[in-house]
Amino acid sequence: MGTKGERTRSEIIEAAKGLFYRRGFGQTSFSDIVEQTGIRRGNINHYFRTKQDILKAVVDQRASEYRAILSDWDTRHRTPKQRLHRFVQMVAAYRHELTRYGCPIGTLCGELGKESWDSQNAARILFDVFCDWLTTQFEQLGEPTQARARALHLLGRAEGITVMAHVYGDPALVATEVSALEKWINGL
Amino acid sequence: MGTKGERTRSEIIEAAKGLFYRRGFGQTSFSDIVEQTGIRRGNINHYFRTKQDILKAVVDQRASEYRAILSDWDTRHRTPKQRLHRFVQMVAAYRHELTRYGCPIGTLCGELGKESWDSQNAARILFDVFCDWLTTQFEQLGEPTQARARALHLLGRAEGITVMAHVYGDPALVATEVSALEKWINGL
Repeated sequence: MGTKGERTRSEIIEAAKGLFYRRGFGQTSFSDIVEQTGIRRGNINHYFRTKQDILKAVVDQRASEYRAILSDWDTRHRTPKQRLHRFVQMVAAYRHELTRYGCPIGTLCGELGKESWDSQNAARILFDVFCDWLTTQFEQLGEPTQARARALHLLGRAEGITVMAHVYGDPALVATEVSALEKWINGL
Repeated sequence: MGTKGERTRSEIIEAAKGLFYRRGFGQTSFSDIVEQTGIRRGNINHYFRTKQDILKAVVDQRASEYRAILSDWDTRHRTPKQRLHRFVQMVAAYRHELTRYGCPIGTLCGELGKESWDSQNAARILFDVFCDWLTTQFEQLGEPTQARARALHLLGRAEGITVMAHVYGDPALVATEVSALEKWINGL
């Protein structure tokens, strides 16, 4: 696949990524992707036969982005506590987007976990990326047997308050919960 | 509307309620409701012109059920603390269903909050029912200025751990978080 082909493929993935997030996976059609990119349906199908194929590429793309961010934090922040703080600060920084559309991972997994799709497995890896990384931080902080439970607790609290902020259209809810989480991290 | 009409209407609402929860709102079609109830499309349209009309009736139905449950708890449990415990015990009791399909309120609001529907308002009332009731309990417990923030915190934690249980197919996550919430309630 030449350079132009790679660019076209990336353009399709980028458009689908945004549409799946803003509109939902089920409510995004090939026509929406055609409209947004200006790439003809036949050309899109040259790269992706089905919407599930596009989903897989979008999830891979998100997973790569997240891994790059976490790897950058590993380099920049020396202690596990600093890294945990960086994670909750990221949640706070995205609060306006989260309030508008919900969590990109949580809403996608919620939708794909219904029996109409039953393909939540396809997106679970995005939670794994954060859960594994958070588990490593909590392990390094001590009490390794508690590490995964703490990672899931932290992810759950970030997810949950994102749901409430999305429902009530109130980004301040995220900021309040992030403060509580920072205290919790400091106390560990 | 006679008795038979009322029964037909209820049957449609009940079927749609289950389908919206298990399959999602967007992925439920009139055909699915026809198939499940055996009621002809024309007859369904006699009661509900659009799927949005059915959604409104489903939300009203859920809101009535929830209000009846909360009113029952108000009668059965004397103190606000007992009532708060009753709420988290309900979450624990539903953990298997929550793990399979996610939270019926959270996943519906998540879906409707996307720009493809932008009709989250229609379902927000379901969170309001619980949020208002929880706020009342926290007010009675003291520190009324903190009451609504605590209600949203509690709802957020219940929602968040439900997302994680749904994603990882693990009802034990709900049970663990419920224990933590019970400690938190006891400490207030």
